[in-house]
Amino acid sequence: MTRLHRALLAEAIGTAALLATVVGSGIMGAHLSDGNEAIALLANASATAGVLYVLITVLGPISGAHFNPAVTLAMRLRGEMRSGEAAAYVAVQLLAAVAGVMLAHAMFDQAWMQPGARVRTGAGQWLSEGVATTGLLLTILLGLRHRASSAVPALVGSYIFAAYWFTASTSFANPAVTLARSLTQSFSGIRPTDVAGFVLAQFAGVVVAHALAAALLGNGRRSEARAP
Amino acid sequence: MTRLHRALLAEAIGTAALLATVVGSGIMGAHLSDGNEAIALLANASATAGVLYVLITVLGPISGAHFNPAVTLAMRLRGEMRSGEAAAYVAVQLLAAVAGVMLAHAMFDQAWMQPGARVRTGAGQWLSEGVATTGLLLTILLGLRHRASSAVPALVGSYIFAAYWFTASTSFANPAVTLARSLTQSFSGIRPTDVAGFVLAQFAGVVVAHALAAALLGNGRRSEARAP
Amino acid sequence: MTRLHRALLAEAIGTAALLATVVGSGIMGAHLSDGNEAIALLANASATAGVLYVLITVLGPISGAHFNPAVTLAMRLRGEMRSGEAAAYVAVQLLAAVAGVMLAHAMFDQAWMQPGARVRTGAGQWLSEGVATTGLLLTILLGLRHRASSAVPALVGSYIFAAYWFTASTSFANPAVTLARSLTQSFSGIRPTDVAGFVLAQFAGVVVAHALAAALLGNGRRSEARAP
Amino acid sequence: MTRLHRALLAEAIGTAALLATVVGSGIMGAHLSDGNEAIALLANASATAGVLYVLITVLGPISGAHFNPAVTLAMRLRGEMRSGEAAAYVAVQLLAAVAGVMLAHAMFDQAWMQPGARVRTGAGQWLSEGVATTGLLLTILLGLRHRASSAVPALVGSYIFAAYWFTASTSFANPAVTLARSLTQSFSGIRPTDVAGFVLAQFAGVVVAHALAAALLGNGRRSEARAP
Repeated sequence: MTRLHRALLAEAIGTAALLATVVGSGIMGAHLSDGNEAIALLANASATAGVLYVLITVLGPISGAHFNPAVTLAMRLRGEMRSGEAAAYVAVQLLAAVAGVMLAHAMFDQAWMQPGARVRTGAGQWLSEGVATTGLLLTILLGLRHRASSAVPALVGSYIFAAYWFTASTSFANPAVTLARSLTQSFSGIRPTDVAGFVLAQFAGVVVAHALAAALLGNGRRSEARAP
Repeated sequence: MTRLHRALLAEAIGTAALLATVVGSGIMGAHLSDGNEAIALLANASATAGVLYVLITVLGPISGAHFNPAVTLAMRLRGEMRSGEAAAYVAVQLLAAVAGVMLAHAMFDQAWMQPGARVRTGAGQWLSEGVATTGLLLTILLGLRHRASSAVPALVGSYIFAAYWFTASTSFANPAVTLARSLTQSFSGIRPTDVAGFVLAQFAGVVVAHALAAALLGNGRRSEARAP
Repeated sequence: MTRLHRALLAEAIGTAALLATVVGSGIMGAHLSDGNEAIALLANASATAGVLYVLITVLGPISGAHFNPAVTLAMRLRGEMRSGEAAAYVAVQLLAAVAGVMLAHAMFDQAWMQPGARVRTGAGQWLSEGVATTGLLLTILLGLRHRASSAVPALVGSYIFAAYWFTASTSFANPAVTLARSLTQSFSGIRPTDVAGFVLAQFAGVVVAHALAAALLGNGRRSEARAP
Repeated sequence: MTRLHRALLAEAIGTAALLATVVGSGIMGAHLSDGNEAIALLANASATAGVLYVLITVLGPISGAHFNPAVTLAMRLRGEMRSGEAAAYVAVQLLAAVAGVMLAHAMFDQAWMQPGARVRTGAGQWLSEGVATTGLLLTILLGLRHRASSAVPALVGSYIFAAYWFTASTSFANPAVTLARSLTQSFSGIRPTDVAGFVLAQFAGVVVAHALAAALLGNGRRSEARAP
């Protein structure tokens, strides 16, 4: 396999594992907590944070560990990757995210595809997704810049844990995750008609983060490190 | 932008994000936990710790990541910054803290400004704030002194998580946070008339920490590292 | 004692401590949570993750800290150890795992041996164990390969925490753990007749992980580092 | 102040802070969780782990961060400190532990001294304390020996979190902690008449750990590092 093929395999495994964790831990949490959604979300957020730390650490050296079209877009905007490579990343992320949801359903003996039913719309939700994505991108862009680049896996895990709680949307912050979560009726799902609003808000967040990172870092210099 | 302007932008983003997390996760936790405040506080404390770890790591190299007038005062007392710079930091922290509370309210579709209603007064509360602030400052001052300065983000996150639980006040330990939390009626709020007592106790904590750090470190030598 | 004897003692202590933690924290969690299994599993998963981080860090330099026949098999497949050594590891792991369960029962004043009663069978459970074991092995094999080898203890702890939640089986991912957990009637037990299905699925996971690791790492080169 | 005086001040602050955290977070957890002891113990264990990580990191370079007569005894047995120094450490630890309990009571507006009422006796409890102390000492002795000595603060925090759950006694593992917790009627207390049994079991744990560490490390060589 070429280096790009290995990178795409890493993106596929990582994105599928991320979605299997988000949806699987959502199902387990909701099932065991008997209606107490705070405990279910605590489990859901902790499991997601834990798996992000693992996936970014072990797959980062192979693909950069994006698992997220918003991250790939930001890296393309910074000139870190070519357009064809970025398009391949995004295609793989979308397919793998759906596969990850189906894997979670299969592990819990549920129908593999389920149209999402959870309503997530309105100004508060969209603001939440914009803020969540801005924060995620700033975490990555600033983290890569400083000496802290080896800390990026722990930074992203910690950030996402917090963002599950401080946003009203539980912080999807990822277009591939948003699309795929429209295919589950579980705790972590989203109604298919609400996907577009989330994704638009997420792209707005990428733009804001790009501008803030430039201001904070003081000039247009490229980061020294290429990827987590 | 000058270096100071970038530092003030970093203080603004960090302080606003800290308050959005404290108040936002408080709203989410209280909403989902259906009256079980222990679960709400667990989520609130974990989210705050996670975001502090992230913010101090990625913004520390730009501004020192104070986000707290008590920390800025301690750094001024140690001669780490000039008075004008310290005053600018504090002004930005106060404004950004209020903005962070409003952002949390907006994400959860609530009124942006709400007079806090939660009573937090009396000797136990004041002692708690003094102890909490002493501990926070000692964590930072000793952490910066030892080889552990790269651990300061994790140290502060861990300390604040613990202090949410071991103090009767849930450890505000930050005058900007205290003022801003008087503008929310949610779980994490404080009655406006109780702000002054908290802030006085916090400044007492700075003085105690300053003296203890001098005794523990054995002499008046300046720290080798300048900031987290 | 020879180096091998010390390694076997380390495997014995580590595997027994792992099982004492899994079963002991399961008993404590179920006892205190009064039927809320989500809280019990949160405690169970957190305690297991914490002890894995400790055991792999302190015993890794002595034995490689396998504590798991699936890990030992993977290391043998990669030529990292001889067959006789691997067999000795597995024998010690099985005995120590049973001893760990008995130790947990003794600490909680329960009968030392209890035939497990919890039904864990069916396609979803087996798929879960295959996925869980594939993920565990990939975490270790990729973690050892990259510069991240010092992160392996935290990676394994974080992975297992997540896998408790994202799989329907709560991720045994370890034949010695599976066998030993058939000897407890507590929260974390498994019916003896369900052990074989779990173990077969776990070995399938080893094979899948071995193939995926080879593809991701790009060639057959041996890892630079020998063990966590 | 001499180096020893600074070390004793560090032991005093650390031990008092540890006890204030154990007892304070126990009061807060029990108060908020409305009778669900699993949630209270989750908060209690997490807060204790967090503060141990902080205290050992920042005070370790000053005193070794024992905070525990069992650790001081183990260091004396290994020839790391003189008898007079060890005796001074233990005296300070005992006094500071009591002061820490009183501080927690004061913060929560309770009577400063309260005779403990929680019954903790019997074979399972004693076995638990022996196991817990053996594990704590092995974590420290092996952690100091390997390159992992900078990980000792995180190792001890993680170990104690796990041990709160896998032992029937919630792992006191510290004679000063045991004595001081006989002075609180809260969640984390112990009946005064049960203290002696706990302390005897803890000293037995020191002896077992000392022997196991010698066997695992392969000879009588002194550790390279002196303290966390």
